[in-house]
This record gives sequence, C-alpha cells and structure tokens, in this order.
Amino acid sequence: MTTSTQHTNVILTGDRATGPLHLGHYVGSLQQRIQLQHQYQQTILVADMQGLTDNGHNPQKVASNILNVVADYLAVGIDPNLTTICLQSSLPALAELTMYYSNLVSISRLERNPTVKNEIQSKAFGRSIPAGFLTYPISQAADITAFKANLIPVGDDQLPMLEQTNEIVRKINHIAGKEILVECQALLSNVARLPSTDGKNKMSKSMGNAITLGADSKQISQAVKSMYTDPNHLRVEDPGTIEGNVVFTYLDAFHPDQNYVAELKEHYQRGGLGDGTTKKILEACLQDLITPIRQRREEYLSDKAYLVEVLKKGTEKANQETQLVLQDVKSAFGLNLF
Amino acid sequence: MTTSTQHTNVILTGDRATGPLHLGHYVGSLQQRIQLQHQYQQTILVADMQGLTDNGHNPQKVASNILNVVADYLAVGIDPNLTTICLQSSLPALAELTMYYSNLVSISRLERNPTVKNEIQSKAFGRSIPAGFLTYPISQAADITAFKANLIPVGDDQLPMLEQTNEIVRKINHIAGKEILVECQALLSNVARLPSTDGKNKMSKSMGNAITLGADSKQISQAVKSMYTDPNHLRVEDPGTIEGNVVFTYLDAFHPDQNYVAELKEHYQRGGLGDGTTKKILEACLQDLITPIRQRREEYLSDKAYLVEVLKKGTEKANQETQLVLQDVKSAFGLNLF
Repeated sequence: MTTSTQHTNVILTGDRATGPLHLGHYVGSLQQRIQLQHQYQQTILVADMQGLTDNGHNPQKVASNILNVVADYLAVGIDPNLTTICLQSSLPALAELTMYYSNLVSISRLERNPTVKNEIQSKAFGRSIPAGFLTYPISQAADITAFKANLIPVGDDQLPMLEQTNEIVRKINHIAGKEILVECQALLSNVARLPSTDGKNKMSKSMGNAITLGADSKQISQAVKSMYTDPNHLRVEDPGTIEGNVVFTYLDAFHPDQNYVAELKEHYQRGGLGDGTTKKILEACLQDLITPIRQRREEYLSDKAYLVEVLKKGTEKANQETQLVLQDVKSAFGLNLF
Repeated sequence: MTTSTQHTNVILTGDRATGPLHLGHYVGSLQQRIQLQHQYQQTILVADMQGLTDNGHNPQKVASNILNVVADYLAVGIDPNLTTICLQSSLPALAELTMYYSNLVSISRLERNPTVKNEIQSKAFGRSIPAGFLTYPISQAADITAFKANLIPVGDDQLPMLEQTNEIVRKINHIAGKEILVECQALLSNVARLPSTDGKNKMSKSMGNAITLGADSKQISQAVKSMYTDPNHLRVEDPGTIEGNVVFTYLDAFHPDQNYVAELKEHYQRGGLGDGTTKKILEACLQDLITPIRQRREEYLSDKAYLVEVLKKGTEKANQETQLVLQDVKSAFGLNLF
C-alpha cells in the first residue's frame, strides 16, 4: 500500500444478520476489518435485507440478530468512530438503485452467475427460488456502488458477484456518459476458510458445528472436545495426521505462539501426543480469546439503546452518502425533476 | 354504489410514462378517472419506473414523457385537487416494498403469470428478459398495496396481476398476524379496447396508428383518412360491413349523438354511404373532441414549472401515505429499530 492510495480506497463489507457471528467470521473477516479501519474508509453493512432473501417467511431470524451482530462487531474491536456500521433496511437508496439496475440485467445472466448457482443448489430451492434470492447479486451491486466502494473483501468464490457488479457499473456509466459509479475489485484474503468443528460442513450455528463469539466457557469446552481430529489416531503412541485435523487447523488460526504449534505438530506426527492433550491446549487458547470478547459482547447487549444509537448514527451517515449516488443515477436516467 | 362505500374505496391507477397518451387511453381509462375522482379517493401513478423495465437502455424515452403525461391528465379534466397525481420514481417506499415482497414470490410463480407470459412473447425478450421486467408484477403489488388501494381499474387481461398482488397481501398479513395490507379487486370497465387506426395492432404512437391527445388538426385529418374500413366496400352504392370497420368503432366511441351513428350504420350496411363521408363525420367529431384538449395541453406544457409543482405536491402526499404502509410492513418483519 502506498501513501497515495490511503485516502482513496473505500471498503464495503458486511454480514447477513441471520445468526450470531462465530470464529469463522473472526478469522475470515473481523480481524481483517479491525486492521482495515485504520487504513481505509470502511463501511460495514448489517445486511438484513439480504438475510431476508432466503428467510422471507421467517423474518424473526433476521430481526432478532441485528443487534447481536452489532455487539459482535464492537466486542471484537471494530470502532464505530473509524468504521461506519449501518443497517441495510434503513437505506432506501439501496432498494431504489436495485430497481434501476434490475432493468439492465437479464434473468439468464443471473442464472449463469456461478456463486448464485452454487447457492441455489446447496439450498435446494429448485424452481421455488424466491425472486429476491435470484436477483440478490443486483442488490449487492446496489450496496457496493451506493458507497462508491472500490475494494471488497471477499473469498474467491465471490469473484463472480463482483464481476456482475462491474458489468452494471459500466452500463450505468455508459448511460450517464461519465463515470458516476466506481468499479470495484476484490480484496482477497490469504486466510483459508476455517472448517467447522466437525470438519464436514460449512460452519453454521444452526448445524451446531460453530463456536460463536458469545459462546460460554462450557460451550467452548464441549465444542473442542467433540472436534474432529484424525480418526485413525487410536492410541497416544500412534503417529497422527495433521491434514484435516480440525484441532490443528484451529491451533494454526488462533494460537498466539506458532512455533509452539509447529512443535506440537511434529510431536503429533511422530506419535506420543494424544488428542486429549492437543484439545486441552486448543481449549485454553480459545477460552483466552473468547472470554473477553464474550464479556464485552454481554456488556454491549445489556445496553441495547447504545447499540441502536451506534447503528442509527452510522446509518444516517450512510444515508447521506448513498442518497448522493442515487441522485447521480437518477440524473443519468433523466429522473431529476425534483 | 351505495353511500357507505363512497369514502372507503381507494383507487390506484396509472400509466407507463413511455409516450404521450392517445385516444385509446381517453376511452379506456381517462374518461373513467374523470368520473371516479368525484366518488373515490383516487391516485394516479406516473409509472416511470415501470416504463424503465423494458427501456432500461433508453431511459430518455421515459424521462421525456413524464410531464407530457401530466399535461395529458390535466388537459382532459383530471383535477389535482381531487386526484393525487404522483411520480413512481420519487416514492422510495415502492422500491423498498418491492424488495420485501420479492422474497415471498418464486421465480416460477412469476413465469406462470399469464399477463407477463404474453408480454414477454410480444416483446420477443426470450431469455434476455430483464430481471426488472419479469419481476414487475411484484413492483405493481408494491404500488397497489402502498396506497391500500382496493379498486384497480384494469382490463380483464390484467386480472392475473391482481391475483398475484392478493397472494402477496395474504402472505404479508400472515407474517404480520393482522390485516396490515388490503386485498384489491378489479374495477372492470365495460368499454371495449379501442382498435388502432389500421385495425391491426395495439395502438401505439411509435407504430403511427394512434391519435394522441396532442395531435394537431392535420394529424387528426390524416389519421382518419388512412383509417381501416371495409376493404370490400369498393363503390359507394355497395353494402358495407360495420364489424371491424374502425371508422364506425371510433364513431361508437366518440360521436356525441349515438342515434345518428345508428342511422349511419344502417345506411352504410344497405349501401349508398361512402367511406369518404363517414370519415368526414368522424374527423369533425374528433377535431371537436381533441382541439380543446390539445389547446389546454399546450398551455400546461408552456408552464412546466406548474406541472412539476402539481406532480411534486401529489408526490409529497403519496410519500406520506406510502411511508406509513412501509412502516407497517417493516414492523411485520421486525425491522423497526428506528
């Protein structure tokens, strides 16, 4: 990063408000955001509208998690004075931009989007896919462009979403005859996706294979105890395998002393190190990590008025920014009568 | 109509702002609206957003017609003190409601909508159909419900749209646990659709087969002269056919003396009445009808600030109404933090 780019890069990131955040979020995005807020203009969108695209009939799942997610952010160290934290459903410009962009994207283009294709398959929607779900890449393009964000922290599975956004940006700029919207690029993380505790599925609280940032001491302990290791490592003296061993993956991700982790791995591979021991080491490390986060999280959640205030203030700022972009797009369409 | 319903019926109607209004609109909806505004709470939506659903790449076609359409309304006698005239793109609640409803309607349900099916075929979209076009029934449901409209003046080809709206109403009310949205019904007109002057296609200014409300004397004259009659009525003394004879359809629709029209028909059928004569009679009648409308229309268009003011005032009123409904829907989804 050069000095000249420090003040021009604008980051948009966010989370679907469909559950409390967990260690996967911590490693995959939260830690990065804590760093980025010091370097860039960063906005975090609490994506309740996107959460509804596959929870339309169960909106409480989304609504009940909004303040939890804000508490998670503050608890890990996201500073609302450095990062704008805002609520998607309270930013009308995002819905309005989605309407404009929808006229420039074909249904077949949406159906070809590999990210959406995979998600449709994994959710087994079939033909009953809600319109809002198929079209959510358009809504996401509205989110990104409304903040003139040019750097989007994503995994490489999300690259087709950004390509779709940039197609829309180019179409709108073509209609406007000038660059009113900004193309974005991925800020790819070098962190591998954290596996679930069972080593099988995508981490999800509802599947009981995730350790949330609000997990209590007992939950952490139980989660580590039930963690997937090496199924062929039957006796302590046997050599064990590191690859696919979730305990070691978590030690890689969370243990503060990576030299010590390297030693443990060597010991485990040559035999003589039991899973009970590695799990105890991991548990201690996760308790150390999560305990202060959980405590801060509980403090924040005991003062919901403060969380609402943080979100409201961020949303007001975001409204100002996104309304300006909406006005530019409306002007490009000639719709600026008043 | 009974007295008890006079103040409870709410009408929403509107036009896509994709061209100036023509005699088809006059017969099919404008005359009815002039009556209805005295009986009901009536809102007319200048549907610029819907106009964009198949003009996304040519937005000027929509933008340039907004004030023309408002001038058409005022020129025919729609009174902004009785009817709320408002602009779709300046009502954010409509876009936001569309987003919520989109999560409750499947793509296959949209593809089954017969009205949309026909329109997709007639526009030859194929798979390149814009997302905004396939999903416009959802946007239309947002329009209708945002005003709590219960009576929608439509042709019977639009009944599937209202059924789709009512499905959404029931889903939202189910989520809310109470009746926050109102089911609508069609206010079917007993007026047949006015044919195009060539008797072939749907009337459309771009196809040159429509007489607009701003047509000048010469345009009216030419349109009537080129009107489709009875192709087998070669000599004046021959018996002529009334059915499919556009001149007589227009005389039915516009001549103030229908007994005289009945006499003309009889004469034409028994022979001895030439098309030149019937066209002269029709032309005189259309000049009488359109001349004052055109003059008022021109006066209004010479004072665009007034038209903008009318539209702005109506839009402000509409914003108040639609925001209340949006708040109800957001509350139903639990999204009323601030």
